[in-house]
Order: sequence, then C-alpha cells, then structure tokens
Amino acid sequence: MNNFETIETRVAQVRAELAMQELDAFIIPHDDEHLGEYIPAYAERLDWVTGFNGSAGLAILLADRAALFVDGRYTVQARMQAPASLFEFLHLIEQPHVQWLAEQLPAGARVGFDPRLHSLTWYRTAQAVLADHGIELVRVTENPIDLHWHDRPAAGKAPVILYSEALAGQSSEAKRELLASDLRKRGLDAVLLTQAEPINWLLNVRGRDIERLPVVLGFAVLYANSTMDFFVDTDKLDCFAFNQHVGQDVSVYPIDKLGDVLQRIGEDQQKVLADPNTANAWTQLIMEDAGAMLVAGLDPTMLPKACKNDIELSGIRAAHLRDGVAMTRFLAWLDRLIASGEFEGVDEGTLAEQVEAFRREQAHYVEPSFDTISALGPNAAMCHYRHTNGTPRLFGQDSLYLVDSGGQYLDGTTDITRTVKVGDVRDEHKAMFTRVLQGHIALDQVRFPHGTAGIQLDVLARLPLWQAGYNYDHGTGHGVGHFLSVHEGPQRIAPKGSMVALQPGMVLSNEPGYYREDGFGIRCENLVVVTELEPVGELPMLGFERLTYVPFDTRLIDRSLLSPAEFRWINEYHAEVYRRLSPLLEGEDLSWLEQATSLI
Amino acid sequence: MNNFETIETRVAQVRAELAMQELDAFIIPHDDEHLGEYIPAYAERLDWVTGFNGSAGLAILLADRAALFVDGRYTVQARMQAPASLFEFLHLIEQPHVQWLAEQLPAGARVGFDPRLHSLTWYRTAQAVLADHGIELVRVTENPIDLHWHDRPAAGKAPVILYSEALAGQSSEAKRELLASDLRKRGLDAVLLTQAEPINWLLNVRGRDIERLPVVLGFAVLYANSTMDFFVDTDKLDCFAFNQHVGQDVSVYPIDKLGDVLQRIGEDQQKVLADPNTANAWTQLIMEDAGAMLVAGLDPTMLPKACKNDIELSGIRAAHLRDGVAMTRFLAWLDRLIASGEFEGVDEGTLAEQVEAFRREQAHYVEPSFDTISALGPNAAMCHYRHTNGTPRLFGQDSLYLVDSGGQYLDGTTDITRTVKVGDVRDEHKAMFTRVLQGHIALDQVRFPHGTAGIQLDVLARLPLWQAGYNYDHGTGHGVGHFLSVHEGPQRIAPKGSMVALQPGMVLSNEPGYYREDGFGIRCENLVVVTELEPVGELPMLGFERLTYVPFDTRLIDRSLLSPAEFRWINEYHAEVYRRLSPLLEGEDLSWLEQATSLI
Repeated sequence: MNNFETIETRVAQVRAELAMQELDAFIIPHDDEHLGEYIPAYAERLDWVTGFNGSAGLAILLADRAALFVDGRYTVQARMQAPASLFEFLHLIEQPHVQWLAEQLPAGARVGFDPRLHSLTWYRTAQAVLADHGIELVRVTENPIDLHWHDRPAAGKAPVILYSEALAGQSSEAKRELLASDLRKRGLDAVLLTQAEPINWLLNVRGRDIERLPVVLGFAVLYANSTMDFFVDTDKLDCFAFNQHVGQDVSVYPIDKLGDVLQRIGEDQQKVLADPNTANAWTQLIMEDAGAMLVAGLDPTMLPKACKNDIELSGIRAAHLRDGVAMTRFLAWLDRLIASGEFEGVDEGTLAEQVEAFRREQAHYVEPSFDTISALGPNAAMCHYRHTNGTPRLFGQDSLYLVDSGGQYLDGTTDITRTVKVGDVRDEHKAMFTRVLQGHIALDQVRFPHGTAGIQLDVLARLPLWQAGYNYDHGTGHGVGHFLSVHEGPQRIAPKGSMVALQPGMVLSNEPGYYREDGFGIRCENLVVVTELEPVGELPMLGFERLTYVPFDTRLIDRSLLSPAEFRWINEYHAEVYRRLSPLLEGEDLSWLEQATSLI
Repeated sequence: MNNFETIETRVAQVRAELAMQELDAFIIPHDDEHLGEYIPAYAERLDWVTGFNGSAGLAILLADRAALFVDGRYTVQARMQAPASLFEFLHLIEQPHVQWLAEQLPAGARVGFDPRLHSLTWYRTAQAVLADHGIELVRVTENPIDLHWHDRPAAGKAPVILYSEALAGQSSEAKRELLASDLRKRGLDAVLLTQAEPINWLLNVRGRDIERLPVVLGFAVLYANSTMDFFVDTDKLDCFAFNQHVGQDVSVYPIDKLGDVLQRIGEDQQKVLADPNTANAWTQLIMEDAGAMLVAGLDPTMLPKACKNDIELSGIRAAHLRDGVAMTRFLAWLDRLIASGEFEGVDEGTLAEQVEAFRREQAHYVEPSFDTISALGPNAAMCHYRHTNGTPRLFGQDSLYLVDSGGQYLDGTTDITRTVKVGDVRDEHKAMFTRVLQGHIALDQVRFPHGTAGIQLDVLARLPLWQAGYNYDHGTGHGVGHFLSVHEGPQRIAPKGSMVALQPGMVLSNEPGYYREDGFGIRCENLVVVTELEPVGELPMLGFERLTYVPFDTRLIDRSLLSPAEFRWINEYHAEVYRRLSPLLEGEDLSWLEQATSLI
C-alpha cells in the first residue's frame, strides 16, 4: 500500500500538471477505457493518486482541495487508505460528484477529464450541468496521471486463447452474421463494441488480461457486411492462427490505430450503433466530430450472449458438477476440522485458501470467478466483506460461517454461497436460515409465462422474510456468463431490477440472504438456467433448471416452519446431490455426503 | 345508433370542410380536451363521425379513404357500428396511427388536428414523425366536426357540489398550500391542471358533468403563492358560496377566458409545470408560444390524492359496508331466483338492473362507478364484456355468472367482482375458481417493506395459476379514487405496472381472474387499502386492509387444493363478513348470509 507521503507527492505532481494546462480541476474515475467491472493493474489510476484500491469510486482534484467519492461498501476502507489531510470523503451515490464540482468552482472555471475513462452519457450530462454554471468541461489528450506514473505496471502479454467451437457451441462467423443482419435490418452501418465480454464472446476468444474475468482487452467495430475490425495488442496473438479461428473477414489492428479507423468511419458519414452508457466518450466523439451519425442503443450482443446455447449449457453443467465436488470436499473438510478441535491459527483466509485448493484440483479450472467472501460470525453481515481488507477473523468463536465463491472453468463459470454451522446455534439462527432457504426454494420452483421479467419474480425469494418482518438489501439474482463475467446482463432478478424478459438459456443466481448487523449473515445461493418446462395447463411455461448441486446445511433448518412441499424440495434436492456427486467422491468425503444429504 | 347513410353524409361534410381548409387529412380521437377516461356526450365526436361509440379509439379521414383504429376490446363492435364501405379497421396498439398516416400521404401533405384533443407528447411525436416524411401537422382553430354537428348535445348544467371537509378530510386551502410550497421549493411559478379528478380533489368539489365520474369539468392553474385560477362554466356555481367554500384566493373564470390567462402567463415568462402526457397540446402551446418555460413533470396532485386521509378512509369503509349489503342482497336474490326455477326472460341485463336496484336503496348512493359487467357463461371470458353492446344472454343455461360492478357513494367509490354458481359446475370450474381465489388470498396477505411497488407484488396473485399452466391477460390491481374515478394512478399492481411505491392510504383492487375462451370467466375482486402493519421482526411493514366484505361462493371451492392457511383465510374472511353485514340484513337475506358464510 502507498504511504501518505507518496500520495501527497503524486497529488502535487498532478496539480502542477493541471496548472500548466490551465485546468482548475481534474476528475479521476476508477474505470478504465472499457468501463467494465474489472480493470487491469495498469489502469488503477485512482489507487495511484489516492491510495484507495476499492472496486468503485472517483476522485476530484482541485487546486486547493480534493474529494474521494465511494459507496457504502467502502466508507471505512477509503478512510484507512487515503489521507484525510488531502481528501474529503463523500458518498458516491448520495452526493452526485458533478453537482458537487459545480458548487466548488466559479463561472469560467475549466474542468479536465480523460474522455477515454467516462461514458458518453456521463460526458453529455456533466457538460450540461457544468455549462449551467458557466464551467467548461475540457477533454485532456494525455492523462496527467499517466505522465507522472513512472513505475506503472505494464499491460499483460498473456496470449489470446482461441476458444473452440466445441466449447462455444457457435462459430464467430455465425454470431457476426446474426448481428450484422440485424444491423442491416435497422439500416445501420456498424456497431462499436468497447467492453471485453461482448468482443470475447463474439470472436470466440478469451484471455488473461484481468484477474477474475478471462478476457483479452480490446475494441471492435462490426460492420453491416459482417466484416469486423478488432483492435488489440497484436503481441498477444498469432495473426494467421487467429484468422484461421475467426475467419478472414476480421481485420486485426494494433490498439493505437483505433482513433484512425473511427475517424474514417466518421468521415464516411456512417450510421453507427453505440451504447452511450457503456462505451467511452472518446470513441464516440471521434466518430461524431468527424461526421458519423451515432445511434444510441443497447449493445446488441447482450441478449444472444445471455441466452446460452446447448453446447454452452452442457459445459456449464459439467463445470458445476466439478465445482460441486470441490465445494462438497471443502464442506466435509470443514466439518472434520471442527470435529478435530485443532484449529488454532485457522482464520477466514485459511478457509478461503482451502476452497481454492479444492477447486484447483478440478479439471479445466482457471481461477476464482471473483474474490471469495469467507466470513465468520458478524463479518458475514457485511454483504461485500473481504477478509483481505483487514485482519481475517479467527475460526472457533462463531455460530455461522458464510462462504460465497466461484470458479472460472474453461467450460463454464460458477458462483455458489453456502452458510454453515460452525459452532453452537440459537433458534434465531435456524429460523432466519430457514426463511432464507424458503425464499430460495420458492424462486427455484416458480413456473412463469414467456415475457416475464426478473423484477416480477424477486418477491418470491423475499416473501418468507417479509411475512416475518425481515428483508435483505441486495438483489436476488444476477446473470452469469459462460467462462466470462460472473456478473452479466441484461437479465436480473431484483426489486428495481431488469424489465428484460427472462428467456431460455439465461443463467442466473438465486441468492436470497439475511444480515443481522454485528451478528451474523446468511445467504443461500445456487445458479439456475431458464428453461422451457413440460407443458401442463394451457400455456407454455418457463422455469429454472438447477445447475448447482451441493448440500445445504440441514442442521440449520427449523422444521416447524416448513410446508410439506418445502420438505419434499429439500429431500429431493439432496437425493439429487447425492446421485450426482457420490460417484465422484470417496472415503471420508463420501461418508460426509451421505450424512449431509440424508432425509430430514 | 346512427345508420350508415347518416355517417356517409357526415363524413362528406367533414371532407368538404377539409378541402376548404386545404387539409389532406384530419385526425379524430375519442378524447375530449381533458384527456380523461370518460367524456361527456357533447364530446363524442368519434361516435358522430364514425358511428362507433366505444370508450377508446381514433379515426383518420383522408380525401378518399378513412380508417378507424380500435383496440382488441372493440374489434367486433367497431365493425358492427361503423360502415365498412367508408372505414378500414386497424388495431389501435399494433398499428401506430401516425406511422400509418405518414405512409398514406405524399410529402407536402397537410394533416389537420384539433390541439385541444391531443396531449403535448402526442403532438411533439406526431410532428417529428410526419416531418420526417415532409408532411405538415396543422393545428385547426375550429374543429370541422363541431361546425357540422348541429344536433350536438348541450353540455350539462348540473350545479357544482361543494364537497364538505367532513367528507374530504382536508380543506382545499391546505391542499393548495401543500402543492404551492412544493412549487416554490422547485423554483416553479405555477402548475397547469387540465384533468377533472385533480381539480375536483384540489378544490373539494364534485359535479355531474359525466356519467360514472362525479366531477365538474374545468381547467385550473395553481400558482406558487397558493392562489388559483379556476375555469369553469360559471352557470354551475354560485360564486359567493363557492368562494366561501374554497377560500378567497381562488378566482373563477368562464372557460373561454382560459386562453387569455394562459397567454398572459406566457408573456410573464413564467416557469410552468405541466404533464405533457395528460394535458392537451393547446393549453401548453399557448403558454410556450407566448414565452412561458414549460417544465414537464407528473401532475403533483396524483400522489397526495392517491394517499387517502383518515376521514376519506372512514367514508370509504362506510360506503363499502353499504355496498356490501347491496351486493349480498343481490347474491341472495340470485340464489332465490335459481331456487324458484322461474327465470323465463331473465337475462344479463335483468341481473345488472337488479344489482343497481339494490345499490339505489343504500344511503348516499349516486350512480354506478362504471358500466356493470354482467356476464353469463362464455360472455364472462371477455374481460370487457358489456351486455348492452348486443343481445344480453338469457339466464338458465350456464354454470357460472360473473358480475363486476361498483358504486359512487358520496363518501366513497366501490368496485367488486364476484363469480357465482348458477348451474351445474364441473371439477374444472372449481379448480380454476380455487386457483384464482388462492392468488387473491396470497396478494391480500402479503406484508411488504416501504418502497415496494405494485409491479413487484403482481406475481403473488398469479402464482397459483402459473404453477398449473394458466394466466390472465390483465393487471391485478388498479388504484381507486374517493368519490372520484374508479381508476386512478399512480399506484397499480401489474406485470408492466407502476414503479411507484405503494404508500399508506392508497386504495387498490385485488382482482386476479381466469378466462376460458368461449367457455367461462372467473374473477375475484375486493378493494384494499395500503396500511402500516403492527410490527413483527425488525422492519416496519405495510400490508393491505380489506375494504370489501361480501361472501365468495364457497360452492366453487375445490378444497383439495387449499393449504391450511388458505382454509383459515376463507373462514376468517367469512366470519368477518357475517359480523359486519348480519346486523344490516334480515329475513331471507340474513339466512342466506348465514349459510353463505358458514365454515368450509
């Protein structure tokens, strides 16, 4: 971690740079130029200039003051990492930063920003708000931080993974032609793609440029005639093999040619689809300034990428089976650890490493799909707890342990949460666990007509908690990619969530929870896939096929709260867990599984 | 009904008028200048020119052709009422009429419209679409229909009802000051109000200008200093008594002064809030053209009007009790009719009249809150069936009867649907009735946290149907006014429904249904009010207090489908029905109630 003196020096360097460029302020978001959830080390500008290394935030440097905006997850961490002598700490959501900035500066002021690191929507809104106050928003051509970040990590050079059709289930040509024909139908000439997942999905490639997200970073333009320009660090690929893989109508360019190509597209007055919320301002403004007509719209890869094909689903099911073996071995190991009584020095970190160790033994395992949440007792009450942000809590003093983890396998991405008994439990622990599980079961069992959106189903997972006067403050389900991001849209099950209809092949988490501040935390999470059900009644109906098969801790169930249908669900689920996993386990692990899946 | 020759003459007259004004087309919506759900007889221009008298639709006359746009409810009725020799029949939703118009006319064409009868949003969109095709949208100053409609009904002269604070629960002054202080906070000078319900609510007045909606029609402007201009047919009120009632800072103007005042507001360059979706284009364009700054926003009366105060709720409860007596007497009468075997000549119309007759005997009854749906057998499968649109079906041949009706009482508005056994029923009738009732019960019983919107709860009413492979194609709950419209926003429980949070005091219907085409129809509807619940657990929760107490037909229940909690709900509901209604009934009606509410 940077110490405070280093931060002071860096802030001074950036301020000197601003003075030279006659800027009164500069905005430093956490985002990189792809505006995705994860960023590579060389893009951690916010960390470099503030010391704060959380996954979301934004800083603003003025000549004589500075502010760091973070959300509720990071209020403590930000104060620990960034010097209060330099930064005011403000709330990212409750204190809109552009409004704040407008109030700090006089009319005539000039605010710098790097157009590569902000969406076009941000730019248009910020420009309008600042203009109302007579303040100018100035695009910098070179980021002042980059000029002074001398020990900046180099970008990775991990080679592009040519992801076979046997895993992807559809050729890149077929995907491109599908999108291109849609462009033609809409009278569009091209679509700009700037996020990693759409491009990697569309080209059937993967990479190792970011931790947790197995992608190669780049930019792309797909044209209505199905040809495509791909902008990437060309050191990462063998062009001949790449074009063999994706087809000859994909042209590879080094990333620094992106501007020239966008300029040419503009000069040709093309009609270009781009998502102003996810594509950076720089790429779109180059085109627009040169004469292109920008058509704002959702990234057209989102929906086809979300609806997994049969081959992808086979891979996802296989990955979940292996992941189930790893998780089950971990849970068995954990019970043996408790039984042994020998857990001196064991802490949340030890447990997380053990989960990872079991996953590493599984075929096709690549890396965790996100940083494991390994939380004992009160730590589990913080939804986004990371034991690595402080001193991990020691094992042995708590009733409940919550572990939320997942794996990137070559054939699929997993995400599972189990809450387990690791000490004496009270009736209240059992009652709350049971209500969470009841919500999980209700959502798992729903049948719904075509056209139903996630926002409509969310209540099913909450109802057992609501009826007892409780709730949880997060969504119930997020989309999950196929050996891609563990968080993907457009599908989502949440109170304010997506209005997009759930469609066959969409993978989602089902993860209700309950959090008692300073007490304990509970979450029950499986992944499911939307599927056509056998018809009954008169309408074709959709439902969820379960992907995750790992025992829930039946020692935490309050049987008096369960309906006969819920008893049946639990016993049938565990019978199926046993049927699937028992051939893949042996010895103590197998005996543990037998007991863990026995009838309740 | 007009015969086809009359329609031909009228269309020819309007076409001649269009030719004189050099217009190539003219658009005739169903709406009047208030753009509300109900319109007075003198505003039935669409009926006059087409013969079609449904509650929604739009016609377009061109020089040599014409089209009538109606929605799925009215496809049959429109073809019966409007001459096919003159009109093409198009779908109001699936065939956007502006797009259609743009395709019929050459560039340079001129399309006339009456800006009083369209919203500003419609105008802006239509103008943009037509301009894309080089077509001009021309505001007519005098509606060509009005010029030729010589036997046009006069507007009613029913006097304004000064609605007492004892019924309204809050003075008009207090309501106006609340809204005005919000205008001041938002830096606005005024708000334009054009719909009947907001104005009648705000001034604590009612009227008899429209059937089914007890309002006086008018326009109003509320200013940030709490003064108000009210534009109304001044014959309808005694100005002295009116100002005694509403306070001295409301100025009354005849309606024809509206333009002058809006013009002056514009010239004063005021910042005026108006809802471009519900206020007509004419009112807003006058202001804008004269220099006003229009601020588009939701009508600010919507939310306070929807959240009923304690006095309003007392009235609503009392009205429901009387309405329950009327409905129960009707249901008892119906069973006696069946038992008598003497129902020759009885049809859906007879039954509807009988419902109305029992309501008329109740204190404070004014009129039906909407046209009664009285539907036997297959007719009930049409959600919006009206026996008055054709030959009413004769009683005696069907299994089920559906009656959806409501009353306007001086102290509240009711809306109730019951489905009852009127012949031999099959297991399937019982299974479907039971599933509908289970959905009704689930929604009735939900507890939900503050911030929950209707769209989140809708699924609860559908789940028992979905799980069996069925659904219904309408929303589950609409808002209901207080001696005002039986349909009000912003609250709504529906799949695509309102994102507005449900708040204490909001009245809603709970009306799941099931419709078997050409077979039968089922709906179970009570009204409920959102209320704070006694706290359990750790969060304050909201829930529904039932307003409607009338027996459900337990002869239609398939007990094998019910959970213990559902049995309990039905028996507790019926015990409460008995407790409330038995003191108000006697003789055969009381014995019927006793049997109808006995334990199942």
